[in-house]
Amino acid sequence: MDAMKPVIILVRPQLGQNIGKAARAMYNFGLTEMRLVAPRDGWPNPDAGPSASGADVVLDNAQVFETLDEAVGDLHHVFATTVRPRDMEKPVVTPEQAAKSIHDNAAKNERSGFMFGPERSGLANDDILLADTVLTVPVNPEFGSLNLAQAVVLAAYEWSKLSDIVGISGIKEKDPAATKAALIGFFEQLEDALDKKRHFHPIQRRSAMVTSLRNMFQSAGFSSQQIQTLRGVIKSLSRPDNSFDK
Amino acid sequence: MDAMKPVIILVRPQLGQNIGKAARAMYNFGLTEMRLVAPRDGWPNPDAGPSASGADVVLDNAQVFETLDEAVGDLHHVFATTVRPRDMEKPVVTPEQAAKSIHDNAAKNERSGFMFGPERSGLANDDILLADTVLTVPVNPEFGSLNLAQAVVLAAYEWSKLSDIVGISGIKEKDPAATKAALIGFFEQLEDALDKKRHFHPIQRRSAMVTSLRNMFQSAGFSSQQIQTLRGVIKSLSRPDNSFDK
Repeated sequence: MDAMKPVIILVRPQLGQNIGKAARAMYNFGLTEMRLVAPRDGWPNPDAGPSASGADVVLDNAQVFETLDEAVGDLHHVFATTVRPRDMEKPVVTPEQAAKSIHDNAAKNERSGFMFGPERSGLANDDILLADTVLTVPVNPEFGSLNLAQAVVLAAYEWSKLSDIVGISGIKEKDPAATKAALIGFFEQLEDALDKKRHFHPIQRRSAMVTSLRNMFQSAGFSSQQIQTLRGVIKSLSRPDNSFDK
Repeated sequence: MDAMKPVIILVRPQLGQNIGKAARAMYNFGLTEMRLVAPRDGWPNPDAGPSASGADVVLDNAQVFETLDEAVGDLHHVFATTVRPRDMEKPVVTPEQAAKSIHDNAAKNERSGFMFGPERSGLANDDILLADTVLTVPVNPEFGSLNLAQAVVLAAYEWSKLSDIVGISGIKEKDPAATKAALIGFFEQLEDALDKKRHFHPIQRRSAMVTSLRNMFQSAGFSSQQIQTLRGVIKSLSRPDNSFDK
């Protein structure tokens, strides 16, 4: 089912040519939904078409977002592709393992996406924060420069290998995972409440503390319902002591 | 063992750029032996180096042959890569199945090679005659134009998955899970703070709400360190607004 195929998200892509090649790689393996976050040279980009070699349907339907938050808002699971695992306290998987999870998630009506960073620098740590899982292609330790289209082709290829397989049902259903938009809303509420109570001190450590909180809640795998519960908890805890005495 | 790694044979390759990209794809997955059969623009080709992006060792050691017969003379098993199976009465395998045979053959000291045809036309039927097996990448039936470097990357990637030359290093071990005592301490602090803010209402539902909070944090699998972090968050959130104004 198309609506459950993974989305390919190119974060701040640089060359139109590479966007075209990524589209071709996607379509070779049956993926059609591309999202572009702040493409450097704007969109549409005349360099993309020729290198897509006929995968125009992917480029024509590509959606553009200003921020990564918006681009992943409706997804339940996001894989951040990196050349090597970073110190992010997130599970690290291979393309094969990612494909397996994506199919399992799709069977529960939960949609996934792959994030790929800019050609030169890869994903920033702030981008990776929004991911549940880091996807790393195991490459030659002496030569790790995998280009964007190659990384996309491997992710799409592994997904396609499992795409005829029907998931096994009957395992106890978990509630649907929270969407990224729900998680982001929760993060903002929590950080705002903590700012008001001056939790982050010294202030220079705020960023590191926020990162570690976000990673922690991200990896907990809470459902939408649980995120709602947590929002209620934060709201209660942070209200003034006398607010219910009126 | 290097001498048992598969060889990549490019038959009448056209663009130097594509030879470079194929070299890069090979080296990403630990393959180093490239053979060129009658490259259209001669060899060396100045366009190859830049697109190899550093995989110079592959290009520097590439061997050139006038005929395919010579190029495959020392090999025991040859896979002919084609976009779709042709009517050749040869077994047809996927990249994954080819990788498995190549490793099995290597264990018997028998060496294998992958043949790839010219970019525009692919392998000629006469070329395929020399192969034992046809290798076909299962692609989108509506869009089968896989480029040369992508075909090489998939063949090399599947081979590397079964070898131990590549690997993901630096996977972060998870911190040890919190002890139950630490969890219980956290639960008590949280529930106490919520009681003070009259979170649990109506009070008859307190027990069900506590159960659901405890289950939720229990299943999140937080580490001791993360539980400490959470305790700090609860403490900050629940302190009176003016406590830091003193």
